[in-house]
Amino acid sequence: MDAKKAAGEKAAEYISDGMRIGLGTGSTVYWTIVRLGELVKEGLRIEAVPTSVQTEKLAREAGIPLLPLARLQAPLDLTVDGADEVSPKDELIKGGGGALLREKLIASFSDRFIVVVDHSKCVSELGRFPLPVEVVPFGWEMTSKQLRQMGCEPVLRMRDGAPFVTDNGNYVIDCRFGSIPNPGELTVELNKLPGVVENGLFVNMADLIVVGHPNGTVRTKSGT
Amino acid sequence: MDAKKAAGEKAAEYISDGMRIGLGTGSTVYWTIVRLGELVKEGLRIEAVPTSVQTEKLAREAGIPLLPLARLQAPLDLTVDGADEVSPKDELIKGGGGALLREKLIASFSDRFIVVVDHSKCVSELGRFPLPVEVVPFGWEMTSKQLRQMGCEPVLRMRDGAPFVTDNGNYVIDCRFGSIPNPGELTVELNKLPGVVENGLFVNMADLIVVGHPNGTVRTKSGT
Repeated sequence: MDAKKAAGEKAAEYISDGMRIGLGTGSTVYWTIVRLGELVKEGLRIEAVPTSVQTEKLAREAGIPLLPLARLQAPLDLTVDGADEVSPKDELIKGGGGALLREKLIASFSDRFIVVVDHSKCVSELGRFPLPVEVVPFGWEMTSKQLRQMGCEPVLRMRDGAPFVTDNGNYVIDCRFGSIPNPGELTVELNKLPGVVENGLFVNMADLIVVGHPNGTVRTKSGT
Repeated sequence: MDAKKAAGEKAAEYISDGMRIGLGTGSTVYWTIVRLGELVKEGLRIEAVPTSVQTEKLAREAGIPLLPLARLQAPLDLTVDGADEVSPKDELIKGGGGALLREKLIASFSDRFIVVVDHSKCVSELGRFPLPVEVVPFGWEMTSKQLRQMGCEPVLRMRDGAPFVTDNGNYVIDCRFGSIPNPGELTVELNKLPGVVENGLFVNMADLIVVGHPNGTVRTKSGT
């Protein structure tokens, strides 16, 4: 069994009748969505808030009832999402797909946050994956200079010859730090920059990490 | 002489030939712009980045050469802007006009930040003025709930029956805290919320406060 499939399907076991859940985006949570679709057909009653247009489409196809975020009156019971890197302390880098702000919003609106990854995402230290930082377009050049002063190589994300624009109308600067020994400190420093809307570090957010392995086994570990 | 006029004109004295400056928005910095226009006519060579469309128009009318932020390759020499409240420790609340993000960006891109206010803005503690918080429209209802949990009364800013939209396409939630004993801590907490783009607390940013009094006298005090 595929490592991603194993992890993604495992996460579906944590979702029970009556829950309102957040659904992330990516090739591992894809399998959670497919499995939830099967369970809904068998009678599971859930409502889901998607973090992206892509997931919204997938969930709709799978027959999972959708809940508009604006109608949410209380926190979600649980959110399942993937990650680009997971540290030994369960800190994450997310946002390679460009939806980090909505992903972070929905995770922060949830009582529980479950992360699904294949084993290749587990690293001894964050930072090999370039950290996505969402910035306001106004003055992005100076914001990029401020990011460089924090010790990274900042690269404006492009698409089809123009800056990539997020769902929120912002730009993304991919920051190659190489090594991020203290993600908690870095996230505070990044948040201080006025041009930074959000960054891809998820610190003290994951409640459970579900790691899939190539032989189809799954290990779980509790987060913060 | 009017207190605002006295403070605004005084700030122009700090601007010298060859400077690239940031120009804020409001009824006090208005007088800085008018005075700078006179000085430019007398031969002062400066270039200015405006924080708002309103200031851009005023500066243009005053004959002050404008500099597009995108062309900025190094920090500005100095920015002059107003404030809604100034604490004894020179912490500020700004953003009553809705341009807090651009104002904070341009202040942070400046070597020196001069604040011009009339004496009525100087308070013993911040917080009577509702703190403007710029938030992403996506999920703003939940962000508002998270703000309420921080001890304020949050009110979505409206205009003509619809949510007020900032230059950056975001909403503003005015947060009535009543009292903000520790602005430094509050700004870190606000920055942690994923839905918060920026907040109106300016901590450790002002280098000089220029305070105008109704009799036309001006006092200056050094900030951080």
